[in-house]
Amino acid sequence: MSNLINEACVKSHQAWVGYRETTYKQRENLLVAIAREIEALGDVLIQTAMEETNLPQARLTGERGRTCNQLRAYGKHITDGYWANACIDTAIPDRQPLPKVDIRKVNQPIGPIVVFGASNFPFAYSTAGGDTASALAAGCTVLLKAHPAHLETSRLVASAITKALVSEGLSEDIFIHIEETDFSAGKALVQHPNVKGVGFTGSFGGGMALIKYAQERAEPIPVFSEMGSINPVLILHENYDESLEQKINQLAGAITLGVGQFCTNHGLIFGLKGPVLDKAAHQLGTAISKVGIIGKMLHPGIAKSYVQNYQTALDQNGVEVVARSVEADEPGIGLIAKTSSATFAENKKLHQEIFGPYSLIVECDDLEDLLAVYEHLEGQLTSSIFIEPERHDVQKLAVAKMIHKSGRVIINGVPTGVEVCHSMVHGGPFPSTTDGRFTSVGQDSILRWVRPVCYQSFPDEVLPVALQNDNPLNIARLVNGVWSTAAI
Amino acid sequence: MSNLINEACVKSHQAWVGYRETTYKQRENLLVAIAREIEALGDVLIQTAMEETNLPQARLTGERGRTCNQLRAYGKHITDGYWANACIDTAIPDRQPLPKVDIRKVNQPIGPIVVFGASNFPFAYSTAGGDTASALAAGCTVLLKAHPAHLETSRLVASAITKALVSEGLSEDIFIHIEETDFSAGKALVQHPNVKGVGFTGSFGGGMALIKYAQERAEPIPVFSEMGSINPVLILHENYDESLEQKINQLAGAITLGVGQFCTNHGLIFGLKGPVLDKAAHQLGTAISKVGIIGKMLHPGIAKSYVQNYQTALDQNGVEVVARSVEADEPGIGLIAKTSSATFAENKKLHQEIFGPYSLIVECDDLEDLLAVYEHLEGQLTSSIFIEPERHDVQKLAVAKMIHKSGRVIINGVPTGVEVCHSMVHGGPFPSTTDGRFTSVGQDSILRWVRPVCYQSFPDEVLPVALQNDNPLNIARLVNGVWSTAAI
Repeated sequence: MSNLINEACVKSHQAWVGYRETTYKQRENLLVAIAREIEALGDVLIQTAMEETNLPQARLTGERGRTCNQLRAYGKHITDGYWANACIDTAIPDRQPLPKVDIRKVNQPIGPIVVFGASNFPFAYSTAGGDTASALAAGCTVLLKAHPAHLETSRLVASAITKALVSEGLSEDIFIHIEETDFSAGKALVQHPNVKGVGFTGSFGGGMALIKYAQERAEPIPVFSEMGSINPVLILHENYDESLEQKINQLAGAITLGVGQFCTNHGLIFGLKGPVLDKAAHQLGTAISKVGIIGKMLHPGIAKSYVQNYQTALDQNGVEVVARSVEADEPGIGLIAKTSSATFAENKKLHQEIFGPYSLIVECDDLEDLLAVYEHLEGQLTSSIFIEPERHDVQKLAVAKMIHKSGRVIINGVPTGVEVCHSMVHGGPFPSTTDGRFTSVGQDSILRWVRPVCYQSFPDEVLPVALQNDNPLNIARLVNGVWSTAAI
Repeated sequence: MSNLINEACVKSHQAWVGYRETTYKQRENLLVAIAREIEALGDVLIQTAMEETNLPQARLTGERGRTCNQLRAYGKHITDGYWANACIDTAIPDRQPLPKVDIRKVNQPIGPIVVFGASNFPFAYSTAGGDTASALAAGCTVLLKAHPAHLETSRLVASAITKALVSEGLSEDIFIHIEETDFSAGKALVQHPNVKGVGFTGSFGGGMALIKYAQERAEPIPVFSEMGSINPVLILHENYDESLEQKINQLAGAITLGVGQFCTNHGLIFGLKGPVLDKAAHQLGTAISKVGIIGKMLHPGIAKSYVQNYQTALDQNGVEVVARSVEADEPGIGLIAKTSSATFAENKKLHQEIFGPYSLIVECDDLEDLLAVYEHLEGQLTSSIFIEPERHDVQKLAVAKMIHKSGRVIINGVPTGVEVCHSMVHGGPFPSTTDGRFTSVGQDSILRWVRPVCYQSFPDEVLPVALQNDNPLNIARLVNGVWSTAAI
């Protein structure tokens, strides 16, 4: 292990011993200050990110806005205190056969967290993205491994975080920016004894490598890798009407948005063989054809993989092209292909995610066949249905299967635009993530980095503020089995 | 893999596809029926357990009562619905710049769970114990690997569970009793693709073996192993008074209770060198000496290990015996030893759990020395302080360290008698468990076996009942950021 990594991990632990004692309000102030400092960077941040990622100005400006809003939302989440899961069971001294003592619990931070920046979201899932925000919210320190593809962008954001720490009077070591770009640095971080958790958004290969590194540790630690998914769409319309056409156009937009480089991009479309699906495929093809050259992909490696992967898919027996946005094998072209459910079921190569604006239509014989083929998919971040709103029985039938394969199920909508709210789940069964019990977006993403601590028979003054009788933080607490903000 | 294990895992998955659709009320009824059927077994259950475990009748009768109360409590937890973490964020169609869609989420079961029966609690942590109860509560099916040391007891309890399933009109395969006693059966269970989680209570070696088996899987799954701990007690009294003497007597009872075969048994006592600790040690020694022969240990293997382990500890330089309950190396004797903080800090052998009625007093120079030595301990299920109630400053100083090493911290009490309530944490940092973010006792133990599923833009009728507008289950839901039982 390099000295640099070891020193960073030692500093991060030392900083955590102080940071874990901060009040919820101090942590909220820190997140708000980070948002402010990122905004204060101004155009230079957007320009730098444009140069490094090929993403257009409007997209990056939007993503910066989302990132800063997310920091402020998590700040509010901290002082709202739901993540703390404060519970109080008061004493019953005269209970028979044994008295009951006073028992309370509240979540506490687990320690330094390693966060890996993602290539496809240089702001929202990188340096000051959801993993960093949720770890800082929890009271954990962060070791941020910068993504080598946008190192300068990451440096700028890291400088904003450092400024915020200084302005809030906190240790600069609460957030440490790691710029060593080789794989061994990532491995050394994940394997350092001071590190107590890992957050990652990226490829299946990258996420699984981190799991393997973590498994070599003496002490198991949580690794939350969000590794993407194919996000199937089930077209179950009985009639081709205007509403379906609108949804198909929305789908074309979702497939090509950001050159298809979203974790919620749709790589699979299931439909029932017949005129409705034929028209839908035709309309989707038409919409894709009109798009033309969509844009450059994030970096040359991703562009090269995309072309290789879709060519492999198109080379499979029984797969035909429906439409291309450009009549040449350029990186970043939109592409719709088609196959039968029998071909799809037999050929596992067609089940793999192709990162880019590609989608495969699977023609099924009937609903039973469609749900049987769907059942063979691996775990997904999202699954969607396009269907007439009133056909509840078919919706129920499909949803009963879909919820056990997906983190999020959408009726008549697309999953792009991951709302930051309490109810959001950006997670899902393996291999979409390494632990489907958690989400990486929304307040509950904080739960990845905390553990409950129980306080038995404590004097009120010695309890953490969140558990004191008069509820000084005014948070909701489960008091003797009922949520309440009242004093005890 | 044996055919038997494979068949069991196939059946368990098939049963899960049905069981996951049961209502909360149906699951509550099942747990209540299991409790009733266990009670209906009558004396034969207690007699069988006595023969297999050497535990006395009173203890086993009490444990049976606790087990049945726990089943009923978890039943109530299911219909209370807090574990479901139902969240609703309603639509804001006119939000700028983008409309907000309706998003809701609720916890759903993850699939078949393998539960390993524990040797030291043949009822409460075994066949129908906390892991089984929480998995069934979650809507998961259970594959129970019977503990070979109390196979007949396990069979009897399993027969009660089967009767309950039949009487409730549910598939018998929701609970499958695995009697193959060799290690390969446990490995095959943990590695079967249908299995989605593992619950274990037992030794460090056993728990880590399961983690290793799980790491060889293609799909990572959660393994919650509760592997015991040394449960340190810090004696910080400035004066030896009647209250301290009472606590010392309570401590002597806790050390010898159940022949020291509790996961919350105290293996370490830290105190400040001087007359108070001398008196406390003398009193503890006197209390232990009076106990005599405590009882037979669970099985010959445990008894043999106990004698070997305490002899190894006593052989270390700088360790002396304070008191023994019997003047011979019999299995199951109570034993108190003593050493200095310097010796303890240097010799990691003295940090290991000795399963049985043994405890080591560590004499520290002052509070700073004591907290520094404490800081070097590994993760614990519990830590306790004995101290004058009004000395809040010292309590705060100690607690600030203790919460980051322990799942539960107790002031002026002992941790035996793990209360089944919302605020309980029976868990803790590694190596007390493999994932300190969870507990194996209390309502939140259900959270080990569920994952959140998000429902976006659903018609009310297609939503799970827990999320429907008029709240038919009358459970607390986080509606637009506020806990509420009201209809939408």
